[in-house]
Amino acid sequence: MKYRFMNMRSFSSQDLDAMPKAYRRTLVNSLSGYKSLCLCGTADAAGHTNLSVISSVIHVGASPPLMGLLLRPDVVPRHTLSNMEATGAFTLNHVTEAIYRQAHQASARYPQEVSEFEAVGLSPRYGALRVPYVAEASVQIGLVVQERHRIIANQTLLIVGRVMELYLPEAALWPDGFLDPERAGSLAGAALDGYYRGERVARLSYAKPDQPLREIDPDLPA
Amino acid sequence: MKYRFMNMRSFSSQDLDAMPKAYRRTLVNSLSGYKSLCLCGTADAAGHTNLSVISSVIHVGASPPLMGLLLRPDVVPRHTLSNMEATGAFTLNHVTEAIYRQAHQASARYPQEVSEFEAVGLSPRYGALRVPYVAEASVQIGLVVQERHRIIANQTLLIVGRVMELYLPEAALWPDGFLDPERAGSLAGAALDGYYRGERVARLSYAKPDQPLREIDPDLPA
Repeated sequence: MKYRFMNMRSFSSQDLDAMPKAYRRTLVNSLSGYKSLCLCGTADAAGHTNLSVISSVIHVGASPPLMGLLLRPDVVPRHTLSNMEATGAFTLNHVTEAIYRQAHQASARYPQEVSEFEAVGLSPRYGALRVPYVAEASVQIGLVVQERHRIIANQTLLIVGRVMELYLPEAALWPDGFLDPERAGSLAGAALDGYYRGERVARLSYAKPDQPLREIDPDLPA
Repeated sequence: MKYRFMNMRSFSSQDLDAMPKAYRRTLVNSLSGYKSLCLCGTADAAGHTNLSVISSVIHVGASPPLMGLLLRPDVVPRHTLSNMEATGAFTLNHVTEAIYRQAHQASARYPQEVSEFEAVGLSPRYGALRVPYVAEASVQIGLVVQERHRIIANQTLLIVGRVMELYLPEAALWPDGFLDPERAGSLAGAALDGYYRGERVARLSYAKPDQPLREIDPDLPA
């Protein structure tokens, strides 16, 4: 994929302010490039399940194993947050090409009594926690809520969860613990509605000053 | 890409605790799947430049335009945070296939007086802010620091920045404001050292209950 520096376009803060709202929303949502793409599974105290698409998952730490995600209480399916508070737990499930249309459909505003699992045709599955995994997802991660931080500027919430349980496709796991998203069939998101498959360019060795980088091979120990 | 549910492997919290540290670090860093991949450009009060690779950038909001990223003060190149504090600004620059090796090399621990720009052979470029863009990057975003939140569990910092300036390749911009990461030549990251190119599967229309999804075409208005 080539691009030309000659055809760069610039936008100032004033340009952003003056944009039609829908255009700005799409553009600003695009700025982080490829995004993690997960279905977040939750349940209320009575066990009613809920599913929402989340594209803001980040790595927070490995010891203890922590992941974060941003929830927009005003926009995101309403029950994810209240369910997290009711059970203290949630699951993250990688979206694959086999289920991305169902994942996207899960963002529709279904009535409160409808579970997105049923509405879009995905299957809840249970492990050690009280919250549902997506059985069709390639990578399934169970977490308990550890912290929440309110972003003052727009009232969004950063949720930090601790990983309690993992289900992974064996074939996607390299000998050194690298979970290959291409082999797992995971997709990346872009903006609010873009779905992309990935193709490995390389894995590179740990960088040191004045040492050449080498590629890490999946069939050799790292 | 196919995978088999039959070959799923599970890990408990105890399994994670018992893993060799390097294996757990690689595995847990993999769990979010594809990640945003940016070079973060900063400068100290005297204008000395710094560059670090960041794979934790997320969208925070569109109005005002906000992005977030997580910094690990103990691990990440030391000056990114102190520079952000000195100037109140930073840039995010998409990593492409043409510069991913240089981006990776920027994570080496260079002596304090060395700028990673020079060390890895990338060019600083200035816009309205006092902080350097990466001239070779396809997408260049200038931000001012808006908020910082300390994650209690591991002392990492969530930085929230407000977008003040943008430089984008015209050819990557769809008519509705969608910035196509494939057309921009942006790469996705995986774990600590994986680099992936993306290929579009589809963009899908806004989901509504009981309405079929349609694909959004780049050559038609959305």
